[in-house]
Amino acid sequence: MHKYTYFEDFRVGETVEIGRHEISEAEILDFAGKYDPQPFHNDPERAKSSIYGGLIASGWQTCAIAMRVLCDGYLNGAASMGSPGMEEIRWMKPVRPGDTLIIKRTIEEARPTSKPDRGLVLSRTDVYNQRGEHVMMMRGYGLFGRAPVASPAAGGSAG
Amino acid sequence: MHKYTYFEDFRVGETVEIGRHEISEAEILDFAGKYDPQPFHNDPERAKSSIYGGLIASGWQTCAIAMRVLCDGYLNGAASMGSPGMEEIRWMKPVRPGDTLIIKRTIEEARPTSKPDRGLVLSRTDVYNQRGEHVMMMRGYGLFGRAPVASPAAGGSAG
Repeated sequence: MHKYTYFEDFRVGETVEIGRHEISEAEILDFAGKYDPQPFHNDPERAKSSIYGGLIASGWQTCAIAMRVLCDGYLNGAASMGSPGMEEIRWMKPVRPGDTLIIKRTIEEARPTSKPDRGLVLSRTDVYNQRGEHVMMMRGYGLFGRAPVASPAAGGSAG
Repeated sequence: MHKYTYFEDFRVGETVEIGRHEISEAEILDFAGKYDPQPFHNDPERAKSSIYGGLIASGWQTCAIAMRVLCDGYLNGAASMGSPGMEEIRWMKPVRPGDTLIIKRTIEEARPTSKPDRGLVLSRTDVYNQRGEHVMMMRGYGLFGRAPVASPAAGGSAG
């Protein structure tokens, strides 16, 4: 089990693999049916005659799966307070049924904010498939709580 | 029914309301359980003690709902060929159960690509809630097929 992650724990420049996820055709169709019902995302037959030559996942689903892997990998053991936004997303290669997505995170920046209890972390998420192809990249900010400061008395012989 | 939309049909500078969607607590919990299981997205009780004071939708779900509204509103009646990426996303205000999301689209740029059969359209999507608050903004590119060119013989008296 990793230790709980506060703003102070991020190391600028560090790249780590956070986790992996194999995407099934059923997952692609479930997401597309709810959120992105374009034929190349939600209809295996019609997808064959699209420019993609077969079913591909919605780019939003690739973002969402990366998010899930980030939650399981560290965010749910961190002082995560949400995000004000993303700086860019690039969908470079199609994601197809049966692909294994490998999610890596690089910390690009970490700075305090005007609120003393939190800091802003800019991270880059790179997604590769099982053939090593770079399928997606996204960069965005996250807010993280700061580590509690030990009080002067803490650890000392207060009485 | 709208006419089928090709690259040539986009008007730079035009803003239109594409559609609306009321988001339920069940939808928020369904998405968060699969893709963004942070306590303020997937646990109504724990969300109360977060900085948001109650359950809020994942920002990725707001993107996904906007995508669905865009599909229903025009993309599925257009020569849509997918997207290479997004230039920015801003999550400005929380989205809460029962909110009605109003999706507006502005065309910022439309230009041909090196491939003669398609063009690139930069559009901005603004999402407001039922109180008129601007909750999200995203800007990104979409690829669209070009309108078929009538052959010289078409419409003439060829025989």
